[in-house]
Amino acid sequence: MNISYSIFETDFKVRPDDIDMFQHVHNSKYFDYVLAARYDQMERFYGMPMEEFMSRGFGWVVRTAYVDYKRALNMGDEFTVRTGIESFGDKGCRVQFEIINKKTRKVCSDGWFDYVLIDINTGRGMKVSPEMIEKYTI
Amino acid sequence: MNISYSIFETDFKVRPDDIDMFQHVHNSKYFDYVLAARYDQMERFYGMPMEEFMSRGFGWVVRTAYVDYKRALNMGDEFTVRTGIESFGDKGCRVQFEIINKKTRKVCSDGWFDYVLIDINTGRGMKVSPEMIEKYTI
Amino acid sequence: MNISYSIFETDFKVRPDDIDMFQHVHNSKYFDYVLAARYDQMERFYGMPMEEFMSRGFGWVVRTAYVDYKRALNMGDEFTVRTGIESFGDKGCRVQFEIINKKTRKVCSDGWFDYVLIDINTGRGMKVSPEMIEKYTI
Amino acid sequence: MNISYSIFETDFKVRPDDIDMFQHVHNSKYFDYVLAARYDQMERFYGMPMEEFMSRGFGWVVRTAYVDYKRALNMGDEFTVRTGIESFGDKGCRVQFEIINKKTRKVCSDGWFDYVLIDINTGRGMKVSPEMIEKYTI
Repeated sequence: MNISYSIFETDFKVRPDDIDMFQHVHNSKYFDYVLAARYDQMERFYGMPMEEFMSRGFGWVVRTAYVDYKRALNMGDEFTVRTGIESFGDKGCRVQFEIINKKTRKVCSDGWFDYVLIDINTGRGMKVSPEMIEKYTI
Repeated sequence: MNISYSIFETDFKVRPDDIDMFQHVHNSKYFDYVLAARYDQMERFYGMPMEEFMSRGFGWVVRTAYVDYKRALNMGDEFTVRTGIESFGDKGCRVQFEIINKKTRKVCSDGWFDYVLIDINTGRGMKVSPEMIEKYTI
Repeated sequence: MNISYSIFETDFKVRPDDIDMFQHVHNSKYFDYVLAARYDQMERFYGMPMEEFMSRGFGWVVRTAYVDYKRALNMGDEFTVRTGIESFGDKGCRVQFEIINKKTRKVCSDGWFDYVLIDINTGRGMKVSPEMIEKYTI
Repeated sequence: MNISYSIFETDFKVRPDDIDMFQHVHNSKYFDYVLAARYDQMERFYGMPMEEFMSRGFGWVVRTAYVDYKRALNMGDEFTVRTGIESFGDKGCRVQFEIINKKTRKVCSDGWFDYVLIDINTGRGMKVSPEMIEKYTI
């Protein structure tokens, strides 16, 4: 069976503190943009915001990341972060992303993140429950 | 011909502002740790610090990144960043890294970054000069 | 003569990477929120965006800052940054600010920043030109 | 009675991710440098590291901050953060600081922070216990 997952979009604007010595968005900030998009999308589309995970003692953390930088984002740029689940395992999921400059419509960066579910108090990985998978399979 | 490149080490300590809501070092900070190690090592070992590149109008920027998070770094942890060039192309190089917790001696994170040389003013990629390659082939 | 300056508003949302180990917005991020609001307001209301200052070789940097933290901002909070010039000197200006939680309508933080105009290349302070003062006296 | 508190020093080096679009250390990072120095000094000199406060359910947060920027720190600069308690109240303390460029021996920034003790779980202010005051009155 082939499951296909939805792709969601969140819009952001570059903040001045994101800019580094080369006058463009600092590399590590793209990580944070994808993170911010996921949080927004968990809340708006999946109906299970990170705050709910955290209040239950769970957290999602990145296990592996692959980021391809194609074009720099600059001061004042507005951009869209498109993310979607690519696949689901019993301990986590792979989320693919694409960051698109709203003015040029070009892809600035794309890649994927493997997230695992952890128990916040122990820091250990946990099994993703069928309830969670169901909520995320949209 | 098989060129082998040296591996260098730089020690750091986690700063409180590196810690995120999960009480461990925020994912994107590992990027910054590798960056800081490279700058330090460019200066101390390669004899061509980033400031020299920048004063000549050049910069090194990340083109692709792959990061494998194995164990979290926590508040107060001291760690070693080991990096080395894995391969050299005419537009840049692949740098592999390993971040090791000094107390446990375990690898917290490893991976690689593809860096490209850019002209700071235009933002465009540039050819790596033989002089640069020579300085980095140690 | 008593000059009164306008107060402008910009809305933002807390980003997950703004949260620190205490589960609320990290202190130094309030700085960045005010900075982001000023950049936005320079562009939208004063008609002289920071990019224009920078392309002319100028920059605005903080000389002194006073921040009063009243209530923490938390994950997912939306907030308004209200800023306005309080007074103008020949080398810079004092900007007052107020950060308001949109849900509670309460002030989270207020204070002021003294900005000075610098020459980006030398890093030295510069005289604010009458043209700049005029554009900002609205 | 006039109590005089000790002043302690911690050395750091500017990290590349601390640099902003003006090629010097971003304003809000000075906050983080003082914070890092306090954490280090709580551990090394006061014998009561932040981790101990946090494991007891307490945290120190900034209530008011005043920062005077005198000279910018730049890429690669090494600096000393000198801090000391200026006064103690029943809910917190004022900590003065000075950041000194190690090469020039000049003060880059000074100011003070009012810290209050909070209950991490409720976020509310707490009374500083006599035991804590005693440990900090050195």
